[in-house]
Amino acid sequence: MIVIDWGTSNFRAFLVDTASGDVLDSRRSASGLRALSQSEFPHYCASQTDDWREGGRVPIYLAGMVGSARGWHEAPQLELPVTAADLANNVVAAPGLDNVWIVPGVKQVMPEHVDVMRGEEVQAFGALALAGTDSGDCCLPGTHSKWARLDAGRMVEFTTVMTGELYHAVRFHTLPGEPARDESPFDEAAFRLGISRAGRPGGVMHALFEARSRHLYAGLEAGQVGSFLSGVLIGEEVRAMREARPGLDTVRLIGAASLRESYTIALDSAGIRIEAIDSDRATLAGVAAIAARHGQR
Amino acid sequence: MIVIDWGTSNFRAFLVDTASGDVLDSRRSASGLRALSQSEFPHYCASQTDDWREGGRVPIYLAGMVGSARGWHEAPQLELPVTAADLANNVVAAPGLDNVWIVPGVKQVMPEHVDVMRGEEVQAFGALALAGTDSGDCCLPGTHSKWARLDAGRMVEFTTVMTGELYHAVRFHTLPGEPARDESPFDEAAFRLGISRAGRPGGVMHALFEARSRHLYAGLEAGQVGSFLSGVLIGEEVRAMREARPGLDTVRLIGAASLRESYTIALDSAGIRIEAIDSDRATLAGVAAIAARHGQR
Repeated sequence: MIVIDWGTSNFRAFLVDTASGDVLDSRRSASGLRALSQSEFPHYCASQTDDWREGGRVPIYLAGMVGSARGWHEAPQLELPVTAADLANNVVAAPGLDNVWIVPGVKQVMPEHVDVMRGEEVQAFGALALAGTDSGDCCLPGTHSKWARLDAGRMVEFTTVMTGELYHAVRFHTLPGEPARDESPFDEAAFRLGISRAGRPGGVMHALFEARSRHLYAGLEAGQVGSFLSGVLIGEEVRAMREARPGLDTVRLIGAASLRESYTIALDSAGIRIEAIDSDRATLAGVAAIAARHGQR
Repeated sequence: MIVIDWGTSNFRAFLVDTASGDVLDSRRSASGLRALSQSEFPHYCASQTDDWREGGRVPIYLAGMVGSARGWHEAPQLELPVTAADLANNVVAAPGLDNVWIVPGVKQVMPEHVDVMRGEEVQAFGALALAGTDSGDCCLPGTHSKWARLDAGRMVEFTTVMTGELYHAVRFHTLPGEPARDESPFDEAAFRLGISRAGRPGGVMHALFEARSRHLYAGLEAGQVGSFLSGVLIGEEVRAMREARPGLDTVRLIGAASLRESYTIALDSAGIRIEAIDSDRATLAGVAAIAARHGQR
């Protein structure tokens, strides 16, 4: 089978040997939703996978924002609680190409909690399958970080925290972010200082402004400002989610290696134990579980 | 005398009758620091005030970011605690024009609290002078909101919360802000809903993302998203500052009428009593107090 994780800014395709789970080939590009108009999806998908498909006999499963209203075709989000079987039972055929299936996202719509997710639900189910368990808390850092709770094979709750996107907005579009416009290497001391400011008097919007006052008067160098801001925001994310989930002691941290590094420091500082899983492996395991159920229908 | 409030994006000049305090004339423009190069300040100032100055005999007092390193000339920030007399004793002559004085800003530099202010300190002293008191908490909303505490004529503490700038960054540079790119009228119901989300599980970075999920699934209209985001951020500012200052029951709210409207709703919802003062009046009263002391030297 072919597994495609197709998000707002990235396209990642994997040719997988279903029997062994091995990845036989893979392709990546920056042709996410932002780069394509709606009519281009089938053509782009075919151009990237035709030589893998044996005339269309190899099925394709798509996960991520590709299933949103502004993607290839909408796969309506399922309301929690949701199992991997529910996702399999609600895959939607992608128009324009044969044997191409879109995995739906999930949502929570309650007066006190409204939230949406597309793609990370597959990774959360995959991470738990890889660990041989059906319950646990998952942290999926990113543009919009997701914290998902699974219990006995069902996703029962999740919360989105817009850490990555806010980091970008602050760095490139505010005065405190000005010294960090240029890329600098990760500075662990500045990152840890940022973490230590989360939850202090004045809250996160004051802590972000400290990037400016500490740059002016407390020795925070221009090259450290980006890491400080990142520490403030990731520190606030972890602080808020720890407060929201009393008793949380272990999370499965699902992400690319670069993001896992900073989240590992922040989670560790908060006394939360981590079981780290690469996001590609989680995607592949999650789609494999869904595809196996879908194939049996 | 002439009072000029010269900030990052605005220039506001007032010709004041010192005896009565009456404003005889005023001028405003968008020629703030962003619009001018360093060498242009004396020329621009002269062009806006020459007909008021009687050949330079009328003194000019400047407050705001004009005294920063990237303004006309740096007036070093004074460390708290600071009185109006300290500000008067440390005004700096502006080079290039006679009888033009820059009021310094203030700062706090402690391991656990580093913060900077330029311009609002004048307004805080002015607001208290207008109220006939020398102690109290002031809230000065804006791009970088300031919460200042004065005690027996001394400013003893302040905290910056970057509410206004973060609102702009979220509205124009994130996915949840997308429906709010165009200007919409203030929507009180959406603003109050935003306020109610501050301090909820997941924190402010989750509440901001709700602008998206509620727009998709809970009836938040595109035209309401801006007011919702504003409610989340102002609600979080008030929540955090209330938590930072236990026992806070009254604030002097110093700002333009448009900003005071939304802050009045947020402060009121938090059970904080308000004494509202227009920011121009506060600036004029503050500079008058400083100029009177400076004139006696």
